[in-house]
Amino acid sequence: MPAPAYLTQHQNRFLEELLDWLRIPSVSADPAFHGDVLRAAEFLKEKLTAAGAQNVALCATAGNPIVYGEYFVGADKPTVLVYGHYDVQPADPYELWTSPPFNPVIKNEKIYARGACDDKGQAYMHVKALEVLRAEGEVPCNLKFMLEGEEEIGSNNLAIFVRENKEKLRADVILISDTGIIANDVPSIEVGLRGLSYHEVEVTGPNRDLHSGLYGGAVANPINALCDMISSLHDAQRRITIPGFYDQVTELSPAERAAMAEAPFSEQEFAQSIGLPAAVGEAGYTTPERTGIRPTLDVNGIW
Amino acid sequence: MPAPAYLTQHQNRFLEELLDWLRIPSVSADPAFHGDVLRAAEFLKEKLTAAGAQNVALCATAGNPIVYGEYFVGADKPTVLVYGHYDVQPADPYELWTSPPFNPVIKNEKIYARGACDDKGQAYMHVKALEVLRAEGEVPCNLKFMLEGEEEIGSNNLAIFVRENKEKLRADVILISDTGIIANDVPSIEVGLRGLSYHEVEVTGPNRDLHSGLYGGAVANPINALCDMISSLHDAQRRITIPGFYDQVTELSPAERAAMAEAPFSEQEFAQSIGLPAAVGEAGYTTPERTGIRPTLDVNGIW
Repeated sequence: MPAPAYLTQHQNRFLEELLDWLRIPSVSADPAFHGDVLRAAEFLKEKLTAAGAQNVALCATAGNPIVYGEYFVGADKPTVLVYGHYDVQPADPYELWTSPPFNPVIKNEKIYARGACDDKGQAYMHVKALEVLRAEGEVPCNLKFMLEGEEEIGSNNLAIFVRENKEKLRADVILISDTGIIANDVPSIEVGLRGLSYHEVEVTGPNRDLHSGLYGGAVANPINALCDMISSLHDAQRRITIPGFYDQVTELSPAERAAMAEAPFSEQEFAQSIGLPAAVGEAGYTTPERTGIRPTLDVNGIW
Repeated sequence: MPAPAYLTQHQNRFLEELLDWLRIPSVSADPAFHGDVLRAAEFLKEKLTAAGAQNVALCATAGNPIVYGEYFVGADKPTVLVYGHYDVQPADPYELWTSPPFNPVIKNEKIYARGACDDKGQAYMHVKALEVLRAEGEVPCNLKFMLEGEEEIGSNNLAIFVRENKEKLRADVILISDTGIIANDVPSIEVGLRGLSYHEVEVTGPNRDLHSGLYGGAVANPINALCDMISSLHDAQRRITIPGFYDQVTELSPAERAAMAEAPFSEQEFAQSIGLPAAVGEAGYTTPERTGIRPTLDVNGIW
């Protein structure tokens, strides 16, 4: 059956299944929801199996299991590895929700629920894509599914799993739909993402609290020292001053930057949406370039 | 009776009275101790009266009362205004005390109790000085006592009291013994103290938490902005860069600085006592000058 007809025929079931999945509060950051996290993984395993995936399994890790499945059509076909996650962010403060986070409601053709777009909606779309391709009669590539349950808490066990399963996960393309889109009416394909290197710096000072009237002016105040360090990490052009920081950063060609600039973007709407008078950043780059192709260095907390 | 003989005769009573006063937990920062704060003020009023002070009164303020008393010997004599305070800092964490903070003990001729040297010990010495001078037969100056109960919480009501009682408090000399001494065996007279101007700066940013992966590089991170501001308050010589900051700061003469330098001070002991490899501060000044005659600018917290 052609995909459009199949989709029309099964749309309600697809939707009901997704809503059922969204009802499971798979909050990985809170141990109180651990049972729900495992239920969400089991749900996904069942649906992958029902869609026709082979070798579907919950792969144990030191934390939440990774749901794995595959669909093999031929060694001469390219292999696409689909990545997604079945855990969600905590939903509190609950009182700010206009509908309960784990009781999905549909308003104006949009689903409102925790995890609807991060990442259960997209992950479920990938599962259903396999089902639809099989109904059409021809799956054009080999598929591997790898859906984890710790994306919202750092993916530490995914990193181990990937290192330990290089052959099993070998693929020509990795498909991730846990990213952004330019606008709701502008389908977008991102071809790269920034990674993350997270560091904690501890500044130590005197052996006790010092009275500023008695010691002020003669002792390096740890706050001042820390601020000097943080402030020195950027120059006046907002370039990062750490030696070697940009050494392995790819500079896009003028043609590539011109292509990026064709994507619709309003500087004013961007600033307004976050309540700021203007965007600011590294000199010589546009806002989409600063958030898209340039590395950044941010402080996420002082305590 | 000459002072030495009088002191020998009454030493035990003086000590017992001070210990009684130290037993009153007059913690001004904690409302739970409010009754004790008032008891400490009453105690002081009684002892000032017993020492022979005139017009002794608890002067009401919006907070804790100010204990006032005076001793007039003649319009041709100079007038000394004695300042002190009868409130104490909180004593917690209690488990770190080797003896209970409000149950004074004497070890090696030292009194261990909260407030023994800040400031009940010194304040009580002033009260007893009046008693001893009267016993000697001649008080050489007019005396005014002004002892407050809010020194440890900012002295806001003292400032109002002083402004409203300029005539009553008029004096030639103000004597404060709530300061430091160079060492336990080096009696010290300080002729000036630094004041305090306290400011809170609030940095506002985007209208919500922003994901550093999606917005990093295009938005002024409030922490970075705050650190830039704090860092820019000092130059590389640790001089404060705020325009006009030093305009009204008195520069001591070389002779005055030479006199200061004669006071015993060990740079190494200073650093060791606070667990730092070295003292640091404004270029061109010694550590005692940096803490004594130079203004300073310190950040006391970020949150």
